[in-house]
Amino acid sequence: MKIDSKEIDDFLVTLLNSVGESLRGDSIKKKSIDTKKNRNDLVTNFDKKTEKFVNGEIKRAYPDATIVSEEGYGDMVKDMSGLVFFVDPIDGTMNFVKREDDFASMIGVYIDGTPLVGAIINVMDNEIYHGGKELGLFINDKRIDKPKNLSLVEGLVDVSAPMALANRFDVQNVIKKSSGFRVYGSAGIIFGHLLTGKEVMYMSYLAPWDLAAGRVLCEAAGMSVVSIDDAPINMLESQVVIAGTQKVVSEALETVKTR
Amino acid sequence: MKIDSKEIDDFLVTLLNSVGESLRGDSIKKKSIDTKKNRNDLVTNFDKKTEKFVNGEIKRAYPDATIVSEEGYGDMVKDMSGLVFFVDPIDGTMNFVKREDDFASMIGVYIDGTPLVGAIINVMDNEIYHGGKELGLFINDKRIDKPKNLSLVEGLVDVSAPMALANRFDVQNVIKKSSGFRVYGSAGIIFGHLLTGKEVMYMSYLAPWDLAAGRVLCEAAGMSVVSIDDAPINMLESQVVIAGTQKVVSEALETVKTR
Repeated sequence: MKIDSKEIDDFLVTLLNSVGESLRGDSIKKKSIDTKKNRNDLVTNFDKKTEKFVNGEIKRAYPDATIVSEEGYGDMVKDMSGLVFFVDPIDGTMNFVKREDDFASMIGVYIDGTPLVGAIINVMDNEIYHGGKELGLFINDKRIDKPKNLSLVEGLVDVSAPMALANRFDVQNVIKKSSGFRVYGSAGIIFGHLLTGKEVMYMSYLAPWDLAAGRVLCEAAGMSVVSIDDAPINMLESQVVIAGTQKVVSEALETVKTR
Repeated sequence: MKIDSKEIDDFLVTLLNSVGESLRGDSIKKKSIDTKKNRNDLVTNFDKKTEKFVNGEIKRAYPDATIVSEEGYGDMVKDMSGLVFFVDPIDGTMNFVKREDDFASMIGVYIDGTPLVGAIINVMDNEIYHGGKELGLFINDKRIDKPKNLSLVEGLVDVSAPMALANRFDVQNVIKKSSGFRVYGSAGIIFGHLLTGKEVMYMSYLAPWDLAAGRVLCEAAGMSVVSIDDAPINMLESQVVIAGTQKVVSEALETVKTR
């Protein structure tokens, strides 16, 4: 299979533009909650509709690819061989439902397990962060510079609320060494903050579709993305992930307690 | 003294438009930190310059008014008689310095201790929330509706990071009863979220200039603003404040522990 990462990047941008337009549309007002796994894990009809649309477009354009996605319209993927698309139709569902702001849609593409291209749309700001190691990084059509390799004391950190409040892994010690703590409530939005230097670290328990696009983009930006026990990321499992500047991730790994 | 609250509101909007334009300008790139009270309380030259400008304009337009402001260019105000302006030139200083986003400038006006007019500019979004009980509520030129009186389980809450992480006042029990926890790091930005229903509660230790404009606007929106021991707000002291929908503030007061 001949892989053209520029072509895939263009495809992702076009696709997420459609998703953004649709989610910003009138329909957003009429969202109805389908089921509740629990109070903080709302699944809306919009999630399902969006995933069906996105997965359909991917299958049409890349029939040999496999898809890992949140709402169940993907494939049963057992290994990372070939072209694998990870789809998170609406990331930050609670923000989508409660705020109608600060939510994202994300697609990450891997080839034989290696990060290739990623794209994240900040839906309400209509900004698409996209690219890869080979292509470079873009916001919409504009190429952006890699963020500075700041240290922990120089920046703001975002840690998932349950982890921070319960001080899991002694993460409050990491927070104390930083300039401040923020909780934005959407992995995609926070990956955008990392790529533009607005925050220097994100730590959370992430499913493959929460992580895939952000990992491609952060690594392309020279940042580190590791599991909390400093093991290689496993793209077929959920795990506690630390993403950020190289300096900050190394400081965080020295500070957290995993046992 | 004849008080025209519409005239004061127009004055605040014009003034904050100038402040916003100036803070969004090129100068933002050249900010230099003047002194550090501590790492999380940066004071930039921009803070001081902005306050000097704002206080000067207020003194020119309302020579009989007194001014309570953060950086020391205000008056020594010992009581709330007459017209009192509260000025926070840059609210969310850390966001201003680290993110160049999600910071605000705020002015609250009281007459003989009664909330009269308030104005908050979300600088980077160029949105001014303004008005009062008599005038109604506006974002820029557009009148907005009062937010719904949601309950805790229906909305997101924002609590200052140190208070939430240390579980002061058992605030984590309030957070657990909500839809989710967010930390945006600027009182002015969060008051904007309350006014538009994006969040249902804000709890933090606030100085008079952090609170003044937000209190005017929240009360005009039919929301509650109380001190944590349910005592009346004292506008000449700092205190732990709970602001939010009437339902949420009442639930929060029942849940927090103050002794």
